Parts: sequence; structure tokens; C-alpha cells
Amino acid sequence: MAVPLDPPPAVLAFDVFGTVVDWHGSIAREVGALELGIDPGQFALAWRAGYHPAMARVRSGELGWTKIDDLHRMILDQVLDRFGIADLSEAQKRHLNLAWHRLDPWPDVAEGLTRLRRRFTVCSLSNGNLGLQADLFKYGGLQWDLILSAEVFRHYKPDPETYLGVCDVFDIAPAQMMLVAAHHADLAGARACGCRSAYIERPLEFGPAAAKDVTPRPDNDLHATDLLDLARQLGC
Amino acid sequence: MAVPLDPPPAVLAFDVFGTVVDWHGSIAREVGALELGIDPGQFALAWRAGYHPAMARVRSGELGWTKIDDLHRMILDQVLDRFGIADLSEAQKRHLNLAWHRLDPWPDVAEGLTRLRRRFTVCSLSNGNLGLQADLFKYGGLQWDLILSAEVFRHYKPDPETYLGVCDVFDIAPAQMMLVAAHHADLAGARACGCRSAYIERPLEFGPAAAKDVTPRPDNDLHATDLLDLARQLGC
Repeated sequence: MAVPLDPPPAVLAFDVFGTVVDWHGSIAREVGALELGIDPGQFALAWRAGYHPAMARVRSGELGWTKIDDLHRMILDQVLDRFGIADLSEAQKRHLNLAWHRLDPWPDVAEGLTRLRRRFTVCSLSNGNLGLQADLFKYGGLQWDLILSAEVFRHYKPDPETYLGVCDVFDIAPAQMMLVAAHHADLAGARACGCRSAYIERPLEFGPAAAKDVTPRPDNDLHATDLLDLARQLGC
Repeated sequence: MAVPLDPPPAVLAFDVFGTVVDWHGSIAREVGALELGIDPGQFALAWRAGYHPAMARVRSGELGWTKIDDLHRMILDQVLDRFGIADLSEAQKRHLNLAWHRLDPWPDVAEGLTRLRRRFTVCSLSNGNLGLQADLFKYGGLQWDLILSAEVFRHYKPDPETYLGVCDVFDIAPAQMMLVAAHHADLAGARACGCRSAYIERPLEFGPAAAKDVTPRPDNDLHATDLLDLARQLGC
């Protein structure tokens, strides 16, 4: 591999929203299809903007354990209100909420995971609930060695219980686990537990109108343009 | 389908040891390769015989939550002692304990799961821990929509928290979940929660010397000779 890691990782754990799937493009597409007379990209950004504050309420203990499906619905109701949309039926709202189960993978993901799985144990580690992820990966045709979720550990990332939970599941030391994500806060959470970190550039995560700064940061063990580049760097 | 079910199942949850993989033949093969001068099939039966009593200690609260990997090791140490085997190194014992991560699927399983996944959400629901199952299915080349384990629910089957936990993960009513298993006690546990049950004949689960009675019982919704027969009955 381009950067020798000692010990080499045994398990690669992947963040999902933004890293593996294009939530912005997919949500905007579904919202656009409803022809609500609003900017679908702005709606997608507003919906996602409620995500971290909603999880923070669970992480602080203000809310008991609540699945992302339910948090997404709470935020959706607020965002519909803010955009002045009052004419969706309950069935339409429920269907729209499940748009998070139908997000397209970035184009490099299927081949990248296949190559990485030949040498490593490859799992997801998402704040998305298990049922959401099962639907998502069936929809996108992605295969993992294991799907893991905040739901298993009853803690949302970046709580240490999530990263250390992966190590416990696979009976490995933290240094043998590498988190793969497009978000520095997530990667920093993993490193604080003694895990490795690999940053993936997803400059269009928030859509073409809000391009992300994907400049390499020295804190991460690896920096890759996409999963094919990561596979190459890891010798797969 | 041959037997109409109303409502039709949305999720098929599979027992694993005995139903999906041949633990007896696989464990006997690994034990036999060690050339210990004992009957490998009898050793496999003795190891497995400790399984339900060990889980019962967790289910009753006598033992705190303990993964199957650790229960298997506790039982292994007792069985080695009983068979008078004192010359295995710690590394050999650890490797032998992980034989439960290397169990062969029955020959109908890969194709059966592929067919069933076209129409249903198909998950495992095993008392085996998540890491064990991830290894097992990678070893056997089996793909699921989701791997579920007693470890997720912190309860061993047949505790109701396991079957109802599957329904909660997928946000379905109990009647929309069908447990698929080669064991009547497991199927009865699912039915007691309002779930459906499908019995799979595995006459050689305990080896050729201890053939199982696989006579159909009227309590089960479906009775199938193997997963291909189940797929046929479910219209896949």
C-alpha cells in the first residue's frame, strides 16, 4: 500500500450518507418529482440541516433513543411548514420520508467495495437505522460483510461507543479499525478512540451550488479521491 | 404460493446453525483434522450440547450478556477436559473455537437465498454474534439483506425480544415476519409473538448417526424440504 500502516487495518467501517450515497442529489430528485414549486436542492439542504441538531437531542439525553427514520420525519414536518407546503397527504409524507431509503450510490462505490472486500472485512457504520440501510443497499445493489448502525450501539456518532462498538463486534484492537468517511468530525471521533481514518473526497455532497472544501488534512491516515483510489492505496 | 398467507410475509428471518449451515459436519471435519484420537462427530455433538444450557444461564440472568464466541469457548474447555485432551496450545484452542466461523452452508442455501431475496427482504436471526456471522457468510459466500443477531437485541432466542426486535427493525407487524428454521422450539417462539413460521427439514443436522425426525407438524405455516422448496412454495 502507498502508506504503510502498522498494524494494517483488519476492518474498514464506512460512513454512509455522503460517503457512500449521494443524499443531496437523490432527495432533490424525489422532491422535484412532487412539483411543489420550490427549489428541490434547497429543500434537501434544509432537511439535512436538521439532522445533526436532532441527533444532538438524542446524544444529550433530551430525547430517548429515536431512530433516524423518526428523526427524519420530525424534521420533514418542520421543513414542509417552513417551505409553506400544506397539501401533502399523510401517505405522501410517509413515502417522501422513505426517500432516505432510496439514495443512489456514488458511481465508484459498487466496484470499490467489491475490491476492498477481497482483502478486508468491510462494514457500514452509519447513524442510519438498520432497516433504512437494508433498504438502501438493496436499492443500490451494494454488498457488505456486515451492516452496522448507531441503532446497534444505541449511540449516535461521534459518540465513542459507536467506533469502539465496531472493534468489540469484530474482537479487534482500535488500531485495527479504519473509519472511511467524507466528514472530518466523524474521522476525528474515530481517531480519538485510537482508530485509523481515511478521508474520501465528495466535493458534490451538498450539490453543485455548495461545493465542499476537500483539501487534505494531515490528521487523517489516508486521503482518497474515491473508493477506487482508496482500494488502490490499500493494495486491492 | 402453495399456501396463501394473509397478510403475505414482507420479511423472512432465518435461523442459521443447522438451518443454513451444517455445523455438525463442519465441526467434525475440523476436529478430525487435529487427529486427537477421538470420534470427531461425538465431539461436535458434545460441544453443541452445551449450547442451550450456556444460553439459558444468560437468559435467566445468572450470566450477564455473553457472546456466543465466549460461550463456545467456555463449553470447549469443558468438552476438551471431558474427552481427556490436555495437549492443545492456547492458539490451537482459539483457532478451534473459531471453527464456528467456518461452517459450510447446506448445498441449497446460496441459490435459495438468491431466489427469495428477489421477492422478500431476507435477514438472518441467529444467536451467533455479529462478527461470527459476518465471517461465516463471507466464508460461505452467502448474501443477506441484513444480518441480525441476538447480540443486537441483547436477548437469546426464543426470548420474544428477538422476534419482535426484527419487526421493530423493519417497522412491520409481527404477522408480516416469517421465521425460517429447522427447530420447532424456535418456530414456536416466533409464533407466540404473532409471527409466521416455516420449518426446513435438515435430517442430517446432527450427523448421519443421529438422524432427526422431520415429520411435518401442523403448527407451522409452511413445511419445506429445503430453501429451494421454500422458494417454490413462496412463488420465487
